[in-house]
Amino acid sequence: MPVGTQGTVKAVSPRELHELRAEIILGNTYHLFVRPGLEVIRKLGGLHNFMGWDGPILTDSGGFQVFSLAKLRKITPEGVHFQNHLDGSPCFIGPETSMEIQQVLGSDIVMAFDECPSHPCRHEAAAKSLELTLGWERRCLDWWARQNGEAARPLLFGIVQGSSYPDLRAKSARELVAMGWDGYAVGGVSVGEPEREMMQAVEFAVPHLPEDRPRYAMGLGTPPQLVEMIARGIDLFDCVLPTRVARNGTAFTAGGTLNLKNACFTLDAGPIEEGCACYACAHFSRAYVRHLVKAEEILGLRLISLHNLHFYLNLMARVRGALAAGTFADFRREFVRGYRPHKAAT
Amino acid sequence: MPVGTQGTVKAVSPRELHELRAEIILGNTYHLFVRPGLEVIRKLGGLHNFMGWDGPILTDSGGFQVFSLAKLRKITPEGVHFQNHLDGSPCFIGPETSMEIQQVLGSDIVMAFDECPSHPCRHEAAAKSLELTLGWERRCLDWWARQNGEAARPLLFGIVQGSSYPDLRAKSARELVAMGWDGYAVGGVSVGEPEREMMQAVEFAVPHLPEDRPRYAMGLGTPPQLVEMIARGIDLFDCVLPTRVARNGTAFTAGGTLNLKNACFTLDAGPIEEGCACYACAHFSRAYVRHLVKAEEILGLRLISLHNLHFYLNLMARVRGALAAGTFADFRREFVRGYRPHKAAT
Repeated sequence: MPVGTQGTVKAVSPRELHELRAEIILGNTYHLFVRPGLEVIRKLGGLHNFMGWDGPILTDSGGFQVFSLAKLRKITPEGVHFQNHLDGSPCFIGPETSMEIQQVLGSDIVMAFDECPSHPCRHEAAAKSLELTLGWERRCLDWWARQNGEAARPLLFGIVQGSSYPDLRAKSARELVAMGWDGYAVGGVSVGEPEREMMQAVEFAVPHLPEDRPRYAMGLGTPPQLVEMIARGIDLFDCVLPTRVARNGTAFTAGGTLNLKNACFTLDAGPIEEGCACYACAHFSRAYVRHLVKAEEILGLRLISLHNLHFYLNLMARVRGALAAGTFADFRREFVRGYRPHKAAT
Repeated sequence: MPVGTQGTVKAVSPRELHELRAEIILGNTYHLFVRPGLEVIRKLGGLHNFMGWDGPILTDSGGFQVFSLAKLRKITPEGVHFQNHLDGSPCFIGPETSMEIQQVLGSDIVMAFDECPSHPCRHEAAAKSLELTLGWERRCLDWWARQNGEAARPLLFGIVQGSSYPDLRAKSARELVAMGWDGYAVGGVSVGEPEREMMQAVEFAVPHLPEDRPRYAMGLGTPPQLVEMIARGIDLFDCVLPTRVARNGTAFTAGGTLNLKNACFTLDAGPIEEGCACYACAHFSRAYVRHLVKAEEILGLRLISLHNLHFYLNLMARVRGALAAGTFADFRREFVRGYRPHKAAT
């Protein structure tokens, strides 16, 4: 899922998202709640209408951003009081408010409201946080059970927490499955822990999750990390990297990342990635994209954003093809071996 | 002509330019000479190939930017020594170098190298500057006469100077016509003079310019100014306003400009301009565009840039239609009357 934090995948239009064959995007509950605010989105007919995107939207619960962006947090069993990061206004989000907000947004996949413990976290604190989260998640389901019009109900995904502890991850997964969600996410990953612990968080949770429900690893990751997560049973990702690093002039390729600001690309007539079918690679040279980035022209980050989103979405399409063909093990080995994290030049 | 200063119409892709029915764009010799530099553009096969634009390109001569952007200028009969505005490197552009640069760029319409006197300018200084410019323009034609391969020669446009003085404007125009150019521009306008003087510069020059050659008013202007210039015999314009003001959240409409940051648009479900056929107006509300601009999302300035370019290009198409139908006088009166420069709301 390309990430549309503030009601737009950064620098990319809905038409371009369709052309990239994006099948679903992510919207951020916290950001949209703070700006433009629910009144605007309600009046404009929900997030799909507001941003002109007719495909599915998954919205996070706001929990992660409340814990990473907001100021002066006060956590109570009821929810979280905080000051928003824009103007410091006092706000409150709890499980019920998070569900209300996501209902107003018109989300197709609603995420449970959870607490995301920081890293590292002692077992006792992680266990206490998990109890709070499980209670909140129960209340999210209860809130939807009280709503009328079950037909229009979105899909509801629970979030496995438990920090780096196998017993807590397992307990979290088992209790969520007992509640019965439409899908299951692994949260509390990519919060500063080493990659090994990130993989373990998935490994601890996945065996307890049903095979017939989608599994979603939140907020990840590099291309090889995604492939490795898929090997561990993950189906769904959201990731800001394709558009975020594009704004710094960095492009993803099968051989690793390229920093297009580098002088070695000054006269390079080749595309960002040889053989790539994206709009940027079909029409423009590395030399041109480098010039745009150096000259701080918006078209530069636009072209790299399109390429990077194409790279990620096409990687997922290739993985699906390999899985269908029964060749995923080979694909995984070759892809991960061929990808070097910091590739400076061709 | 949409303006592509640094090898891109700001924030807009070549595909979007085609969709906007842009028939020609402008490139800036000075900017491209300074960055990425001629070696890059030569190696990448000229400006068309470099920027992926297969339509015509008019390039200015670099004269205006040398006088408005560069530092430590020293003007000699040979040309202008200066330090470029990026890193202060010493550079030189004279009439012959300007022609060489524009030849490397692969321009379809090459502008003469001229001196653009500042405003206000005494008659004596303006007369002296004009003599220098006329000598330089003569040398531009001479340079092209010395080139082989006449078949591939671009169109060459002379530039009328002469500040605000009718005798100098007339002299400039008459001497240029005697030299025989493919088209004629009125330069030294929109340099800080009152609108009345800007119109007069055109009025002083046009009667001396042949009817069967295009006339181009450089670096203009607001929508009513363009219509008024057309009434005075101008055929061609370049203007940065559509993309420049878009980056500040300002949109052009037939009723005047709208600042989409204004709070009155917070809940406005209508398009930027009612009845407009552009991509932005077909798909997005003022409320959404306002949100994007307030949140500093690039898609906001992209959408306004598309709308503003559509507005300008469509205005020219409407003028051509009115001229063909013999109704231009009515069109002019109604358009200028309906356009209010600072329209805050609907």
